[in-house]
Amino acid sequence: MESDSEFDVIARYFNRPAPPEMLGVGDDCALLPVSHGFQIAVSTDMLVQGEHFFPDVDPAHLGHKALAVNLSDLAAMGARPLACTLALSLPAIDHAWLKAFSDGFHALAKQTHCPLVGGDTTHNPAGVVISVTVMGEVRRTHALRRNAAKVGDDIWVSGVLGAPDIALRLLQGRLPSNPELLAATRQALEQPMPRWRFGQHLVGVARAALDISDGLLQDLNHILTASHCAAQIQFDALPMAPALAGLAPELQQAAMLAGGDVYELCFTAAPVRREQVQAVARQYAVPVSRIGSLVQGEGLRVVGPDGVDMDVLSYGFDHFKHGITL
Amino acid sequence: MESDSEFDVIARYFNRPAPPEMLGVGDDCALLPVSHGFQIAVSTDMLVQGEHFFPDVDPAHLGHKALAVNLSDLAAMGARPLACTLALSLPAIDHAWLKAFSDGFHALAKQTHCPLVGGDTTHNPAGVVISVTVMGEVRRTHALRRNAAKVGDDIWVSGVLGAPDIALRLLQGRLPSNPELLAATRQALEQPMPRWRFGQHLVGVARAALDISDGLLQDLNHILTASHCAAQIQFDALPMAPALAGLAPELQQAAMLAGGDVYELCFTAAPVRREQVQAVARQYAVPVSRIGSLVQGEGLRVVGPDGVDMDVLSYGFDHFKHGITL
Repeated sequence: MESDSEFDVIARYFNRPAPPEMLGVGDDCALLPVSHGFQIAVSTDMLVQGEHFFPDVDPAHLGHKALAVNLSDLAAMGARPLACTLALSLPAIDHAWLKAFSDGFHALAKQTHCPLVGGDTTHNPAGVVISVTVMGEVRRTHALRRNAAKVGDDIWVSGVLGAPDIALRLLQGRLPSNPELLAATRQALEQPMPRWRFGQHLVGVARAALDISDGLLQDLNHILTASHCAAQIQFDALPMAPALAGLAPELQQAAMLAGGDVYELCFTAAPVRREQVQAVARQYAVPVSRIGSLVQGEGLRVVGPDGVDMDVLSYGFDHFKHGITL
Repeated sequence: MESDSEFDVIARYFNRPAPPEMLGVGDDCALLPVSHGFQIAVSTDMLVQGEHFFPDVDPAHLGHKALAVNLSDLAAMGARPLACTLALSLPAIDHAWLKAFSDGFHALAKQTHCPLVGGDTTHNPAGVVISVTVMGEVRRTHALRRNAAKVGDDIWVSGVLGAPDIALRLLQGRLPSNPELLAATRQALEQPMPRWRFGQHLVGVARAALDISDGLLQDLNHILTASHCAAQIQFDALPMAPALAGLAPELQQAAMLAGGDVYELCFTAAPVRREQVQAVARQYAVPVSRIGSLVQGEGLRVVGPDGVDMDVLSYGFDHFKHGITL
């Protein structure tokens, strides 16, 4: 591509020294070491202005989230972050925006030991498009695959559920304006904290794991399909975000069961691992909840607060939907 | 991100079985093996409709080129392709376009043993944006770095120069319409063939290498800056694309010295390696030309056909321009 000196300048916001064991920005490729006996885990996401974020979102939050959603995929695989790349297209050079975006990005990169080692910045009159690729390492045969769950496993979820969906509904005007509720839920939507350390330490403890960015029921279904089993969930065991306490039960249920943009882990583990799961959770200060178990058969039952099965189809559970996004 | 069933469907165009030693599409991350003693080389590019390609470009060519430009970066590092990811945002589902784009992409991926193992497909009303990340492996300490050149080295270039720039000028109307000339230069612009095998086999033979996608003079300058030396080039030694034969000398010179979108390698090697360079070139049927040598000092001289130094500043050589794109 022909280079553009303005866009060379913006690259300065992203060019930080790489750790001594790596080659970072400045050559044709970045170079990353991989430990002997480990595999590389890779995940890529693309965020499009107006589709995945509002044009007026705080750019520091956007920089954080662009990396966070990918780190969440590494965590769900049990992989340790190694490094990331960023491709960013922008309609114009807005230095205040770039400073905030890059600060948000680098702060999370530093915290998670996932340095930005390369990428591309280009002009795009149509709006901001961000694509981040993360690479991590995980010991061979130890990754937390979706197909590794077994009948009898407990089903666990980290953190709390429902807040990002409520924030999104408020920002889109699908719920009446409620500044207090927005203030209590917005961080979960805009600044999710990936379970990057907790995920790594589930290796050898959990069997299958994924993140529930498409919503608990839809994502859990990926484990069921890949592992050929069914699930029974107790709705009362689901960890509700405290901010949802005063809302109508139907809204709480929809947000917790089907709400997306949740960068928590759902994982399965043998019942003998309960104490180990709790110990890892304590070590990394991650709340965990045991929400149900895997059973023989097909499909997913959610036992409601009244002891009656809930209508999972109405909450985004689609038996025919398989995990075919790339 | 909330998923979109239409965009799940388009993912089917890209979901191909991964080689048995890898985990491809379908989990939180792809998993790639890395040979013991090797490093991972990574490169990312973003292509924006209207900026990097014409909206009416043949989608099969676009699919090819989106991967080719990244494979060229691996080649310039001496790395063997391992796998790639694709993030693609589209204004609408156009099945004919998707079929052609994915066919073009997969054909090159298959040829270069660089399977597509993951990615993201999203809606973007504003136009097509493509981001590809390639990962390769190269033996530790063996990568062809820009800073490894030495005074006295020969300077080599693969292939021929000038055709992509002429095609771009014709398509942009900066040259008078000339269907014959366009037919003779367009493939170099739209379907560049990265030197993926040749690059790998320059390891241990060449010292420094890069691809000249920003133009010969500008990219060669990155080697000079990183390796703290100067260069002397013989213009008559530059390999001109045959299609340029009838053009005005000024146009030939500008296209060859400054024209971008050239996915050829420029590399340096000690004079004792001349026969080895020629042998590797013959083995992979890559034409190579010895165009000059590295000398002490700073800057770059191009000795013109008349024996007089050419004005390199007018051809995109900028002493103050350093390689700061990410």
